[in-house]
Amino acid sequence: MKRTERVGAIVRILTQHPNQTYSLNHFCQLFQAAKSTVSEDVSAAKQLLSAMQLGRIETTAGAKGGIRFLPMVSETDRDEILNRLCSKLSDGGRILGGGFLYTSDLMFDPDMMRGAAELFAGRFASSGADYIVTIETKGIPVAFMTAYMLNLPLVVVRRESKISEGSTVSINYFTGSSDRIQKMSLSKRAVEPGKKAIIIDDFMRAGGSIKGIIDVLGEFDVKIVGTGVVIASLEPEKKKIQEYYPLLYLGEVDDENKKIEIFRNDK
Amino acid sequence: MKRTERVGAIVRILTQHPNQTYSLNHFCQLFQAAKSTVSEDVSAAKQLLSAMQLGRIETTAGAKGGIRFLPMVSETDRDEILNRLCSKLSDGGRILGGGFLYTSDLMFDPDMMRGAAELFAGRFASSGADYIVTIETKGIPVAFMTAYMLNLPLVVVRRESKISEGSTVSINYFTGSSDRIQKMSLSKRAVEPGKKAIIIDDFMRAGGSIKGIIDVLGEFDVKIVGTGVVIASLEPEKKKIQEYYPLLYLGEVDDENKKIEIFRNDK
Repeated sequence: MKRTERVGAIVRILTQHPNQTYSLNHFCQLFQAAKSTVSEDVSAAKQLLSAMQLGRIETTAGAKGGIRFLPMVSETDRDEILNRLCSKLSDGGRILGGGFLYTSDLMFDPDMMRGAAELFAGRFASSGADYIVTIETKGIPVAFMTAYMLNLPLVVVRRESKISEGSTVSINYFTGSSDRIQKMSLSKRAVEPGKKAIIIDDFMRAGGSIKGIIDVLGEFDVKIVGTGVVIASLEPEKKKIQEYYPLLYLGEVDDENKKIEIFRNDK
Repeated sequence: MKRTERVGAIVRILTQHPNQTYSLNHFCQLFQAAKSTVSEDVSAAKQLLSAMQLGRIETTAGAKGGIRFLPMVSETDRDEILNRLCSKLSDGGRILGGGFLYTSDLMFDPDMMRGAAELFAGRFASSGADYIVTIETKGIPVAFMTAYMLNLPLVVVRRESKISEGSTVSINYFTGSSDRIQKMSLSKRAVEPGKKAIIIDDFMRAGGSIKGIIDVLGEFDVKIVGTGVVIASLEPEKKKIQEYYPLLYLGEVDDENKKIEIFRNDK
């Protein structure tokens, strides 16, 4: 194999398995090449990825050491992702009445959710989380992609306790917006006590669901180290949770003139 | 930029956006390089990807032409993915009683579902589908990843019609295994009539849910061109659908001795 081919292969393997550590030996065996050769290849791959602003290769020492790829979103990419989301969401045809928007097409769009997940993964890369947690249904794709990029397991809180979940812990909670009582449940097999989690969801109004997820995880002694939502509505101003990171803010939904106010979160 | 860097960048961009067509001009602008240079880079990227058995770059002619990456799963990768799934699924600790298995950890595992989706994407690459369709909840990650790899939108059939789905079409159907009546619904905005779809789901026993999805899509005049499931149980032998492609077969679940029979589908 030529140098170009080996570097390309390293870039492909590392970027396709973000945050997974590979030993240099892995590549020596794959390429049937000496350690010194692979070291030079890795240096070239490092330069390439940072020149392209795609991310960086980190080297860790020790017996379990090796190299891993930490994705990075360039400012240009960030701009492009947020602008595309904004423009799609501003389409007045989404208005369903009652202030509701149709967003399923977006939340299930692979390319869009890949972009959103890149932003969350960048934001929460150093959080030390053990899990990504979401609640069914529309948040699953973006939460799954974030989990993939951070190389963490995804945990999905269910609305009902299913027989296939085994024994579960359930809570009742108030939805923030309508003050209805709803139920959510989590399998006892899903998480281990004492671990840390990031919550990722598609939409937050008053934060009732996310407060519920925090409570149900609290039953397992799992601590929250970050919360990301694709869209947070500006109303109500008072939320049930304090810290959260939205990609976009939803302002006024004008049913009559079919206008939707969407703002980027540029912080 | 050096040749090595440009080839690495092409490999990265194409493999991260499978089945998306990029014009040569796109790369000329990105690298600020001449068309002849980029053509040579693309040839090198082609050789690299096929040498690594990762997939192939296809060139399409015409005004909308360009290059796109079609992922390929090598026999070694396929073996590894199926063996890992088998070994995880055979763990007797999954038995919940009543013949049910706990599989949420697997179906929500990013790396596992990435592997499963690669196999589905390879299988259905030439199906001409317009959508990937699944039903909530546990099939969403693998269906989403398959949609990502085939560059198709994901459509999720819901168990209940939610207000945020707008007007929906609902059907009642018999679950094949327990002969209970269940409901599923699909937003009228989710699909266009006359299109083609691939169904992807996590588990199939008698095929009642998948038959339901076919029926609800039939209401929209959407035709099924393929069905993939991660696990199909051998029992009951008579299924409600004829054609499906399982990655694994589930045989006997021996509750007493904590043994689970899992077979690879090597066809």
